[in-house]
Amino acid sequence: MKIGILTIGNELISGRTADTNSSFIARKINQQGWRVEAIMSVGDDFEAIENRLNYLLPLTDAIICTGGLGPTADDITSAAIAQAFELPLYTDENVLNYIKEIFTKYNLRWIENNAKQAMFPQGAEIIANPVGTAAGFVLNIKGKLIFVIPGVPAETIRMMTEGVLPVLRRCFPQNEQYSAKQTIKTFGLSEAAVDDSLKDIDFNALDVSIGFYPVFPENHLVIISRRKTLVEAQRKLKLAQDEITKRLEKYIFHYGEETLEEIVATLLIERKMTLAVAESCTGGLISNRLTDVAGSSAFFERGIVTYSNAAKIKLLGVPVDVIEKYGAVSEETARLMAEGVRKLSGTDLGLSSTGIAGPTGGSPDKPVGTIYLALSDSTQTLCRHYAFRWDRKRNKHVFSEAALMMLKDYCETQISKTK
Amino acid sequence: MKIGILTIGNELISGRTADTNSSFIARKINQQGWRVEAIMSVGDDFEAIENRLNYLLPLTDAIICTGGLGPTADDITSAAIAQAFELPLYTDENVLNYIKEIFTKYNLRWIENNAKQAMFPQGAEIIANPVGTAAGFVLNIKGKLIFVIPGVPAETIRMMTEGVLPVLRRCFPQNEQYSAKQTIKTFGLSEAAVDDSLKDIDFNALDVSIGFYPVFPENHLVIISRRKTLVEAQRKLKLAQDEITKRLEKYIFHYGEETLEEIVATLLIERKMTLAVAESCTGGLISNRLTDVAGSSAFFERGIVTYSNAAKIKLLGVPVDVIEKYGAVSEETARLMAEGVRKLSGTDLGLSSTGIAGPTGGSPDKPVGTIYLALSDSTQTLCRHYAFRWDRKRNKHVFSEAALMMLKDYCETQISKTK
Repeated sequence: MKIGILTIGNELISGRTADTNSSFIARKINQQGWRVEAIMSVGDDFEAIENRLNYLLPLTDAIICTGGLGPTADDITSAAIAQAFELPLYTDENVLNYIKEIFTKYNLRWIENNAKQAMFPQGAEIIANPVGTAAGFVLNIKGKLIFVIPGVPAETIRMMTEGVLPVLRRCFPQNEQYSAKQTIKTFGLSEAAVDDSLKDIDFNALDVSIGFYPVFPENHLVIISRRKTLVEAQRKLKLAQDEITKRLEKYIFHYGEETLEEIVATLLIERKMTLAVAESCTGGLISNRLTDVAGSSAFFERGIVTYSNAAKIKLLGVPVDVIEKYGAVSEETARLMAEGVRKLSGTDLGLSSTGIAGPTGGSPDKPVGTIYLALSDSTQTLCRHYAFRWDRKRNKHVFSEAALMMLKDYCETQISKTK
Repeated sequence: MKIGILTIGNELISGRTADTNSSFIARKINQQGWRVEAIMSVGDDFEAIENRLNYLLPLTDAIICTGGLGPTADDITSAAIAQAFELPLYTDENVLNYIKEIFTKYNLRWIENNAKQAMFPQGAEIIANPVGTAAGFVLNIKGKLIFVIPGVPAETIRMMTEGVLPVLRRCFPQNEQYSAKQTIKTFGLSEAAVDDSLKDIDFNALDVSIGFYPVFPENHLVIISRRKTLVEAQRKLKLAQDEITKRLEKYIFHYGEETLEEIVATLLIERKMTLAVAESCTGGLISNRLTDVAGSSAFFERGIVTYSNAAKIKLLGVPVDVIEKYGAVSEETARLMAEGVRKLSGTDLGLSSTGIAGPTGGSPDKPVGTIYLALSDSTQTLCRHYAFRWDRKRNKHVFSEAALMMLKDYCETQISKTK
């Protein structure tokens, strides 16, 4: 089956917004074993949308359109599609009521043009939007399906998975309908290096498809097996996973969908351990990531962002002469920060970061990208030191990643000790 | 002038690689005052490439293609374009010698298929590649230009700027070559409400284009005017900006590209003021955003994430009976947190947040989304209270936005006082 993707929006053809939806949709389509014939972007323009649809329709079995379903004047996708196929627009009362409920619930002011989001071309089957007001729809035009979903990435992702794929599967039944899937998360290798490590694996021979998804600073692999039985799909998947693990074991930190902060939170809660964090160059990012996890108050006691030396000295008890002798960015300071925050907070663990995020502040022996991390418990203080080479924001991000990884490794050692 | 963009590569239509080239090229084209008619991606496939080119050619004055110029078997772009327009391929001796020189210089082993990179369709004008072996070219097909450059982003960027744009400017002299642009950032209104407020402005009559760009929790407007002189473009832009300001003044917080944290940082540094932050529900996000700004150590002294009540009491000196009487999420606690962190840090300002990010922890009178913010200086403590209704991560984000907005408003009042 051949699919066309049409992303709609002036922000795409002006280059103001990068089109991440089309590659997401293309991945999903390829994972199903279907083929993307073409990807196109077009502005919010009646004639251009009509022209593209008429070009794509003979080339494909289905077209997936995103964007232009908002309430504003430049959101014309539904109207343009109605015009292209000479269909009248109608108001769907269920959708209208749903939108009005959302407005009431969130105490938003109702403006009449919001009703536009309840208008669809005649014959449309509605695709619910679980995360917003813009419902999608699918039209059957001479046996070909035209899907339209919103372009806000979070909504595209949900509706592609929960709305579009089920309809596609129903209308174009697959022989190999059982699938098994695994996400493998790696940290510490570039995408090219991951790719290179796996180049001798013949995934086709294993009947497994593989996708590479860089999510800075991680690289995720998604392997999917599609077979006639679930057992067979799982068996094939396991073989592929084992081959990947053999080659990348050192860099794999998780099999599954959880984020690193969720993994760390679960480990700490399981061990009934409490944590305090003292951050310098990461500026609150480690605390922020940990507190993104619902229920983090079970383990997260406090975070301290000691950006100034005075704060390191006063709040964490790092002696001034240690900072003077070794520098604020040093193993010695990192260790004392971790120990200080643990003791002062009365927690089981103290975690610290001190480094140079950039763009300035580097020196020949401590260049921008240098980070010292320390983790203290009641019996020991561990330290790790890395030199990364990114810009300020990415350095902060990779520093926080390394810190959470250190916590994860520590927790996992703890469980082996108690075994 | 209308431009088509065609990015070529199996990695694009499989979704394995996100297409960043097309948005880069689109931005460059729009900056010149030209228009992108369509963006397309296609696989490494003779028939499909020919089909797309024949579709794009009548719609556009020029097509910019990227990708498929490497030495391997799946790099077929030059051959596909030659076939599409029935042109023979020839070997360019200058390019061949240049590639051989590179191989010698970097001590690479010469393999015969590298010579493929010196083959071009008859009539091609070569576009030099300053950063790789894959030269590009431009063909004139019945008065329309077809550009082909490599798809490696670093090479695309260089060759687009140094190779493609000069040829386009030479062949299509611009009438309205001066443009003026303004970004207007708003906070506090939904995208629909912003649109509704502006619906009576006739931007076409003002010769100004407008784009809406939601960047949660902000909504940005970008207005662009393109005229024969810069003065005229700026005059038109000013008229449109004044109309927008008249309608949205209350919600506009910035004219320009700077982020809210950059704006706040500049204000604090200008006023030589120092800041300490005490965060509860925002979990370090306020500190993280402020320290994303390079040079933030000039004003940011420390941040404290007091997630537990014990930390609020011990680190900030909030009396236990205040927390017991009014609750940790209350105006009273917020005020004492801000005052406490300011006094303990010895900074000019203390900023605090306490609220309920969710998904649990809400109550009828303090639902999820409740936030109290306080800002303390040596003479007063201000407090703001909001009720938002997002999920945990978006609540944290909008809380931090409101906190930074409070800082911004405060700093701007300070300057008026000193005037």
